[in-house]
Amino acid sequence: MPKEAIRTALKVDLKAPAPSQPGLHNRWHPDIPTVGKIVPGEAVKIECIDWTGGQIKNDDSADDVKNVDLSCVHFLSGPFEIEGAEPGDVLVVEIQDVQPFQEQPWGFTAVFDKKNGGGFLDEHYPQAAKAIWDFEGIYCSSRHIPHVRFPGLIHPGIMGCAPSPEILAEWNRREGELVAASGHLDRVVANLPEPHGVHAGSASGDLAAKIGREGARTIPGRPEHGGNCDIKNLSRGSKTYLPVHVPGAKFSVGDLHFSQGDGEISFCGAIEMAGVITFKFGLMKGGIAELDMKSPIFLPGPVQPQFGPGRMLTFEGFSVDEQGKQHYMDATVAYRQTCLRVFEYLKRYGYSGEQIYLLLSCAPVEGHVAGIVDIPNACTTMGIPMDIFDFDISPGAPATKLDMGSCALTSDRK
Amino acid sequence: MPKEAIRTALKVDLKAPAPSQPGLHNRWHPDIPTVGKIVPGEAVKIECIDWTGGQIKNDDSADDVKNVDLSCVHFLSGPFEIEGAEPGDVLVVEIQDVQPFQEQPWGFTAVFDKKNGGGFLDEHYPQAAKAIWDFEGIYCSSRHIPHVRFPGLIHPGIMGCAPSPEILAEWNRREGELVAASGHLDRVVANLPEPHGVHAGSASGDLAAKIGREGARTIPGRPEHGGNCDIKNLSRGSKTYLPVHVPGAKFSVGDLHFSQGDGEISFCGAIEMAGVITFKFGLMKGGIAELDMKSPIFLPGPVQPQFGPGRMLTFEGFSVDEQGKQHYMDATVAYRQTCLRVFEYLKRYGYSGEQIYLLLSCAPVEGHVAGIVDIPNACTTMGIPMDIFDFDISPGAPATKLDMGSCALTSDRK
Amino acid sequence: MPKEAIRTALKVDLKAPAPSQPGLHNRWHPDIPTVGKIVPGEAVKIECIDWTGGQIKNDDSADDVKNVDLSCVHFLSGPFEIEGAEPGDVLVVEIQDVQPFQEQPWGFTAVFDKKNGGGFLDEHYPQAAKAIWDFEGIYCSSRHIPHVRFPGLIHPGIMGCAPSPEILAEWNRREGELVAASGHLDRVVANLPEPHGVHAGSASGDLAAKIGREGARTIPGRPEHGGNCDIKNLSRGSKTYLPVHVPGAKFSVGDLHFSQGDGEISFCGAIEMAGVITFKFGLMKGGIAELDMKSPIFLPGPVQPQFGPGRMLTFEGFSVDEQGKQHYMDATVAYRQTCLRVFEYLKRYGYSGEQIYLLLSCAPVEGHVAGIVDIPNACTTMGIPMDIFDFDISPGAPATKLDMGSCALTSDRK
Amino acid sequence: MPKEAIRTALKVDLKAPAPSQPGLHNRWHPDIPTVGKIVPGEAVKIECIDWTGGQIKNDDSADDVKNVDLSCVHFLSGPFEIEGAEPGDVLVVEIQDVQPFQEQPWGFTAVFDKKNGGGFLDEHYPQAAKAIWDFEGIYCSSRHIPHVRFPGLIHPGIMGCAPSPEILAEWNRREGELVAASGHLDRVVANLPEPHGVHAGSASGDLAAKIGREGARTIPGRPEHGGNCDIKNLSRGSKTYLPVHVPGAKFSVGDLHFSQGDGEISFCGAIEMAGVITFKFGLMKGGIAELDMKSPIFLPGPVQPQFGPGRMLTFEGFSVDEQGKQHYMDATVAYRQTCLRVFEYLKRYGYSGEQIYLLLSCAPVEGHVAGIVDIPNACTTMGIPMDIFDFDISPGAPATKLDMGSCALTSDRK
Repeated sequence: MPKEAIRTALKVDLKAPAPSQPGLHNRWHPDIPTVGKIVPGEAVKIECIDWTGGQIKNDDSADDVKNVDLSCVHFLSGPFEIEGAEPGDVLVVEIQDVQPFQEQPWGFTAVFDKKNGGGFLDEHYPQAAKAIWDFEGIYCSSRHIPHVRFPGLIHPGIMGCAPSPEILAEWNRREGELVAASGHLDRVVANLPEPHGVHAGSASGDLAAKIGREGARTIPGRPEHGGNCDIKNLSRGSKTYLPVHVPGAKFSVGDLHFSQGDGEISFCGAIEMAGVITFKFGLMKGGIAELDMKSPIFLPGPVQPQFGPGRMLTFEGFSVDEQGKQHYMDATVAYRQTCLRVFEYLKRYGYSGEQIYLLLSCAPVEGHVAGIVDIPNACTTMGIPMDIFDFDISPGAPATKLDMGSCALTSDRK
Repeated sequence: MPKEAIRTALKVDLKAPAPSQPGLHNRWHPDIPTVGKIVPGEAVKIECIDWTGGQIKNDDSADDVKNVDLSCVHFLSGPFEIEGAEPGDVLVVEIQDVQPFQEQPWGFTAVFDKKNGGGFLDEHYPQAAKAIWDFEGIYCSSRHIPHVRFPGLIHPGIMGCAPSPEILAEWNRREGELVAASGHLDRVVANLPEPHGVHAGSASGDLAAKIGREGARTIPGRPEHGGNCDIKNLSRGSKTYLPVHVPGAKFSVGDLHFSQGDGEISFCGAIEMAGVITFKFGLMKGGIAELDMKSPIFLPGPVQPQFGPGRMLTFEGFSVDEQGKQHYMDATVAYRQTCLRVFEYLKRYGYSGEQIYLLLSCAPVEGHVAGIVDIPNACTTMGIPMDIFDFDISPGAPATKLDMGSCALTSDRK
Repeated sequence: MPKEAIRTALKVDLKAPAPSQPGLHNRWHPDIPTVGKIVPGEAVKIECIDWTGGQIKNDDSADDVKNVDLSCVHFLSGPFEIEGAEPGDVLVVEIQDVQPFQEQPWGFTAVFDKKNGGGFLDEHYPQAAKAIWDFEGIYCSSRHIPHVRFPGLIHPGIMGCAPSPEILAEWNRREGELVAASGHLDRVVANLPEPHGVHAGSASGDLAAKIGREGARTIPGRPEHGGNCDIKNLSRGSKTYLPVHVPGAKFSVGDLHFSQGDGEISFCGAIEMAGVITFKFGLMKGGIAELDMKSPIFLPGPVQPQFGPGRMLTFEGFSVDEQGKQHYMDATVAYRQTCLRVFEYLKRYGYSGEQIYLLLSCAPVEGHVAGIVDIPNACTTMGIPMDIFDFDISPGAPATKLDMGSCALTSDRK
Repeated sequence: MPKEAIRTALKVDLKAPAPSQPGLHNRWHPDIPTVGKIVPGEAVKIECIDWTGGQIKNDDSADDVKNVDLSCVHFLSGPFEIEGAEPGDVLVVEIQDVQPFQEQPWGFTAVFDKKNGGGFLDEHYPQAAKAIWDFEGIYCSSRHIPHVRFPGLIHPGIMGCAPSPEILAEWNRREGELVAASGHLDRVVANLPEPHGVHAGSASGDLAAKIGREGARTIPGRPEHGGNCDIKNLSRGSKTYLPVHVPGAKFSVGDLHFSQGDGEISFCGAIEMAGVITFKFGLMKGGIAELDMKSPIFLPGPVQPQFGPGRMLTFEGFSVDEQGKQHYMDATVAYRQTCLRVFEYLKRYGYSGEQIYLLLSCAPVEGHVAGIVDIPNACTTMGIPMDIFDFDISPGAPATKLDMGSCALTSDRK
């Protein structure tokens, strides 16, 4: 017998304010009411808005980025009850497709202001910037970063099941301790529960207030459930194994990315978009114990962009910082150095630092932990697919400065 | 006209003591005498002994590992004068092949004792262990880690040109400062120049003594020249661009690996071997300025093992440590957690912790910096090629404990 | 400035009879009126119906296949005028995406009756059969061929520019000669112009009659323009270079395939579907002379399904036929033998011959001309991705017969 | 316990005449004496001379090619008894490595004279030509075909077990019938048993004479055992399943290729070399029945050169021949047309026809049967990896004629 068309388990309204839509929420909390039930084995579509809830516009100014309200991110679709899921089970999440909305074929990548969000290189690039990407089928290109075009490795930045009360308490404890211990630092090290900006789905009154007081922010991924892990390879055809901590699993998804590079270095660094994701869920009863699982695991899908290893120009970085200070086995410092090496290389073609920052955040670059034992230097690498440029960036070819225009900047810099 | 066979620019003697061979050296110093001249465009073979100079034996005890003398590592072949190379140039190093010696078709992977070398997981596995790998063409397997077999991604752990005096001084300064600042830590954070164990090639007398006093240890890779970067993808067919800092470049190579995983987590973690590497060198005059190069860059070769993305079982880790402490954006902590997740998974099949530690160090696992901006959690991943096992390790297949024997342990543990 | 959404250059009506839609046509002729103009550089969507015009239903009987009217195939969308294109130019066709209609997420693969269409193995499987494939994102599966699931390598079977009158005359001459010389054979060797069933787009009266009399059938691909070449790799991201023979190019497209194997052996062998294709066109003025082009060339796209070479179980075949007759260097005979070897292998799991016939036609199998010089035996191979099965088909694993149900057969066979 | 080094089961002498070496033979016959025994599970090396027995020299004249004696090809190493193998078994042949001899780091590709060997395009290029390839690790390049360099997909052209008397008789019957039926053709269609030039290994006297009278020539691959199938993907790491027809299997190997393109179009078209192949054998008892095997099957290895699908410039060909004659579904004609399209394209850069003929024969080009059902036109494709050229051959780049020198020609053409 013919199958029916795939049902849409949640529709969003791109024109309505995000906080007004009860199928969305922006905190992790076991008590956020479910928005529907999904049966294992059933294929379903779920619509998502972009993570900021439409705050960033398709224009040529980064003022919206500079002034973005981060208290209300990320807007997630869900939570969904998965029929039969119980604590201790593993939810098997197969992503069958991810697509932007046909009527909104664009996305954005942004560098946040150092004082409002920041990013991996905010000491170097403290001011807001933005690139708009136009989608043409599998490809994207940007009027703000010329001479580049690439196929997206499309994926959700965030998938996860709701934490149990115990796990939520643990998150708030350990992140609170970090914040408490970091008061001397001139930066936000973690975002603790924040009633302002909370969207608790269809909850209201006391429950909404409780969720605002207790609900974990969605910004970090966390080992117990995944969440905002921002792994670019969770793309079409992938299968992710997520631990279940509450009855019904309460699965949520959001933060769709048309493309992202390893590290997503500018924080709002993927090509952020609204769109539709198609899932098929499975259940592995008692799977947490069976797999001895503490964090999610996954199998990537079979249709990733392939460039050939010899087409990946690769840069090395070590844990010696910009001031010449030697750090001990610090892969974070090493990866920042690796990034800076690419900046120096690509500036030779006329790109501005902000353009490169945006590009390395969202293009399908490969960031590896190469060596993590040769004391005191961690070594990391970043591979750039040379074929995303329409000119030859190989080291043997001459480097000519081209007219690279400008990415979107704030109005005070124009 | 027919070409002549490829000449061997340096031969080693696997039976003679390493310190007696003037074509070898184990420190970085601009004054180590060259052992020969190579013309750009010429293909040459260079023989290398294993990095320890033959200290580790093909047997079933890890006592040699426990007592290894690390003051004399790594034994490198060279330095070679590259004709025409001057400071400011870039040396283009094409690796045309790497092969083990036919008469010594085996290598070793070791876990060092925490008090003598240590490793990435020495808090968990503080005692020495070892696996011997037998080579059969492109494949290797080990009597110490059953049910595993994989093709090698063969490469040199170390390539580099000699530092200038100024660069050497900078290395010694910054690593000295780290040591000075870390006196309170219960571990060696860096190895400063050490006259004991020095092998200065053909230098003797005052020059050898000077090299002993000043010469940088070869253990870390360093941004200015590469060195022990331990990048598994510098394999057959790769092309590396190395900065030249002294007249003639003074290029050295060593630490050949039959295979290595991203991170090389057990420190002596690759499949260490003696062998022959074939190079062709090119020169990019003035290339450092032209490429604005601060650290080496490279293009991988076209013949890496291919498993298909859907065959890579991938684990996630975050910067929350084993004690539940939240670290701020620490990719090193995250990568350690990622590794530990694989341990938990693979133990279900009967492997011991040490066996897994050895395996993840040397098998072609892929370690990625997935997200480095979602405060406070860095997220890293490790992908394991499922096809290196002769049983099904996919999450959907049942996990049965197999007889996994034992890796080589120290005599007090047997 | 924001870009506008991609316009749809042609809409089809899945519910209206195909012959009633003036944007479709089913013959190649230079005088078929254009249905719109497209500007080089513009991205456009073009809707297509399935090649039979909706004759095949989503049900469990192959009677529709047996009785299919082939006089009216293939229904193509177009022809489109490409602004500025002139004879001698090369039309550069970038496929940016291909998608099934969301409201019709299924396709069909069929074996034609030997007396009405036939196929590559119609001596072995002379009766009609059918499989319906359900689409779930990038994947498809069929209730008629259990235990199989794979990602589509989605593509159009047919793309081409209209022939000039001279080229059309040449086609009719040479195919007519073949038919004339083959009268003794008990099979249709080519389809000559056929007024019955013709759909000449918006042409009517004398022009429609002329097109019926002269218009080339769309069944074969032809060297001068491509047409129905059925190359599975003309998928998302590919770039095809097509010769232009008439002013405005008169480009047409159709016969969309969700997936196809090399050879498309059952004739209606791809997963045939209706859908939407997104193009961007470019023009290479005078390109035919510049490229010395006699037939189309192309670059595949970067997002093909990847299985890893070691996961492709590969079968060999030679030009000795089923009766033991030795043919001289006949790659067609060899490829048929190669196919038959796969049938024998897969029947061991319980699949019927018709199921295998359907499967090899549409799954992403790789068919190679391995050796074409070792007289008298041509050798061809067919590689089957083992990962499309949910059980282990490797030669080392035991072969157990499973309940494979049945594909759709004709009512007289049930 | 340490394993011993891999033993060499057969050594050859590159300086002695091939017919004088009893470990070689050049016919298929069940009675050729074995040259040694190999135990399943044992890794062994087998040395091979080049297929012509050293007739072709590393020089700049093709006279040796023109006058080559083909009555004595191919010189194979073996046959080897595989312990325990019986008729009905399947021999599992894992190729662990293939290497040229270090002291002979070169190979040759040749176009035979139409009157002495011929080839796929001998109507177009009837005269002998030659290219010498120098090996530098995984790469090869030729002074006879400038601006090209590529990694080899190294493999044996021939592997097979001896035929039973019944199978041998069948070969001679069917090939004899072809010869008998082809007397009107102006070409050799098959090579029947030929006493002249026979080398029956260690057999002598009556046995040698019998082998000369009855022994099948090694030129064609044959379905019952594989033999000279010339499949480029039987490279390092591959696993081939060969039917066993006589007690002990009597396995032979030879015709080593540093590289070959699909089709091996110039007949002596691979990069022919002498060298060493490393095997590990397995036995599947009763495997022929279990696998229902009529011809060999194989799994390719995991280390093939990877170029990325978007780097393969692909040409199309159809079964309309050079005279404009329409053939019915003839994949051989189509593949010849496909080849000719590449000739036309590459000539634009200054290559001669013979240079292109040699290059397409031996470079890792991919030849596919694209469509084999669209009557009357078979469609085949050939993909050329663009990255083997040191200039840009993409259609968008300008085509400039370069100084391409000349391949080796016969002395009368210089």
